[in-house]
Amino acid sequence: MQSTALEWSVCQWFNTQASPVLSDFKGRVVVVSAFQMLCPGCVAHSIPQLKKLHELSQRIPLTVIGLHTVFEHHQAMQPHALEVFIHEYRLAFPIGVDAYDGKEPLPKTMRDWQMRGTPSTFVFAPNGELRLHEFGALDDMALGVVIGQLLNKT
Amino acid sequence: MQSTALEWSVCQWFNTQASPVLSDFKGRVVVVSAFQMLCPGCVAHSIPQLKKLHELSQRIPLTVIGLHTVFEHHQAMQPHALEVFIHEYRLAFPIGVDAYDGKEPLPKTMRDWQMRGTPSTFVFAPNGELRLHEFGALDDMALGVVIGQLLNKT
Amino acid sequence: MQSTALEWSVCQWFNTQASPVLSDFKGRVVVVSAFQMLCPGCVAHSIPQLKKLHELSQRIPLTVIGLHTVFEHHQAMQPHALEVFIHEYRLAFPIGVDAYDGKEPLPKTMRDWQMRGTPSTFVFAPNGELRLHEFGALDDMALGVVIGQLLNKT
Amino acid sequence: MQSTALEWSVCQWFNTQASPVLSDFKGRVVVVSAFQMLCPGCVAHSIPQLKKLHELSQRIPLTVIGLHTVFEHHQAMQPHALEVFIHEYRLAFPIGVDAYDGKEPLPKTMRDWQMRGTPSTFVFAPNGELRLHEFGALDDMALGVVIGQLLNKT
Repeated sequence: MQSTALEWSVCQWFNTQASPVLSDFKGRVVVVSAFQMLCPGCVAHSIPQLKKLHELSQRIPLTVIGLHTVFEHHQAMQPHALEVFIHEYRLAFPIGVDAYDGKEPLPKTMRDWQMRGTPSTFVFAPNGELRLHEFGALDDMALGVVIGQLLNKT
Repeated sequence: MQSTALEWSVCQWFNTQASPVLSDFKGRVVVVSAFQMLCPGCVAHSIPQLKKLHELSQRIPLTVIGLHTVFEHHQAMQPHALEVFIHEYRLAFPIGVDAYDGKEPLPKTMRDWQMRGTPSTFVFAPNGELRLHEFGALDDMALGVVIGQLLNKT
Repeated sequence: MQSTALEWSVCQWFNTQASPVLSDFKGRVVVVSAFQMLCPGCVAHSIPQLKKLHELSQRIPLTVIGLHTVFEHHQAMQPHALEVFIHEYRLAFPIGVDAYDGKEPLPKTMRDWQMRGTPSTFVFAPNGELRLHEFGALDDMALGVVIGQLLNKT
Repeated sequence: MQSTALEWSVCQWFNTQASPVLSDFKGRVVVVSAFQMLCPGCVAHSIPQLKKLHELSQRIPLTVIGLHTVFEHHQAMQPHALEVFIHEYRLAFPIGVDAYDGKEPLPKTMRDWQMRGTPSTFVFAPNGELRLHEFGALDDMALGVVIGQLLNKT
């Protein structure tokens, strides 16, 4: 996986008019969090963490992106249901739907980025390099340290 | 609201082959918890409480019933999506779908039982009388005391 | 251990002018919680639980008694230090200091009541009978059920 | 307050044979956490945070120092009691007792560093400059970001 070439494949966005690509955010630290709206670990851990990250991003050059990476129970987690989830959990950062063609078992970004499941967290440096790829719950303090270290590396 | 006449109106059940009615459980304390799968307070508070109640019900004459009382965003919380939710959250107690005809804004049990929203918790005595109707998060200890007090009143 | 004969041995009381004995509370459910002010499990779990019990006791025939059962590090947990702890944690229910003569390794109530350590929780029925003796953290809901069951048995 | 001149005044150390001074740690980020062993907010929030910081310090150039800054109830929080607290809470990082002469109401470091109470957290850059002084609970993620940002500034 050549990290500088990583790009998400999103078929629909929420909370943004644009169709952002990763390279739009050069100069900023980018946290991408892949989740599923009916994954209990994501809801209990990642969603509160993402809200905290989003708050933090108001004050520092940090961008937070959610990725709805559905790899099971597709019927129950379609974009119209995700929209309700985003509304009910009051999520305000951009969230993209990982592209799914109905043929492959996994959506495209999940395959391209070699994710093992949800939640998965990715942290990119301001120069676009991937610096962290973690599967499962990630500690707030440890994530903060990684972000802080990258903030200076413009 | 004449509590002894209360009966739920359920169009589909999960985790039970039967179509139970409230009066089936005479002689037992019954906790009915009305929730929505995309209601954050329900997921964070009621679901863990229901799992704890269900564990408790293995040792004492207590029956736990979930009621999926959808009163908004119907498209996103249909029974097939609830089935996934039940699977992912590993819920093992009977859960009924509150009957909804698509005409009235609220489902039938919600109207009949005069619920104000979700989560709503109902506790019935072994003689079938309604003894508690609470809207919002309910403290574990306080709920335990109510259940304990009713256990003796067969 | 003949539970009806149980009585605590307290050398000093806080939050009460009287020197209560267990038999004073006939007709009420009594929860006695044995703790040490420098026991991490007691501070994290029992103290919040006791505050919740004390709140509950304003509305139902329940009495909450703390017992400072020091069996190690006696110098660091003397009554004058306990007094500060009670003040800082804003504990308002009666707390007795388990009698310690400096000869035996354990204080007297701890020996008489055969405690294994702290925290230890005891629940007495309104007729004075011991109905629960538990070592370690006790779940709020389970404790609530026990209390509720005993409330009726006057 | 000229931060580069800050130095603690400690009369006794635990978990270290040396008598460290702040300038010993040039080249490392230093977190100093001022607490009192009978301050509920310190015990509930700062102590777990310090344990997490100490774990983190095994992998990055970070030093964690506790400061027992007693400004009330001195009799109940003497060094021999602190020693028991350290043992019971399994704290393994260096903890100094803020110097107290019994005349002034506050201990010396507390006065010199202009603390408003406990908990108080101080973060020093690798060059010794004070970069954060916060009174009250500090969020794990926000603290992590501050530490991360300073790690690069050798």
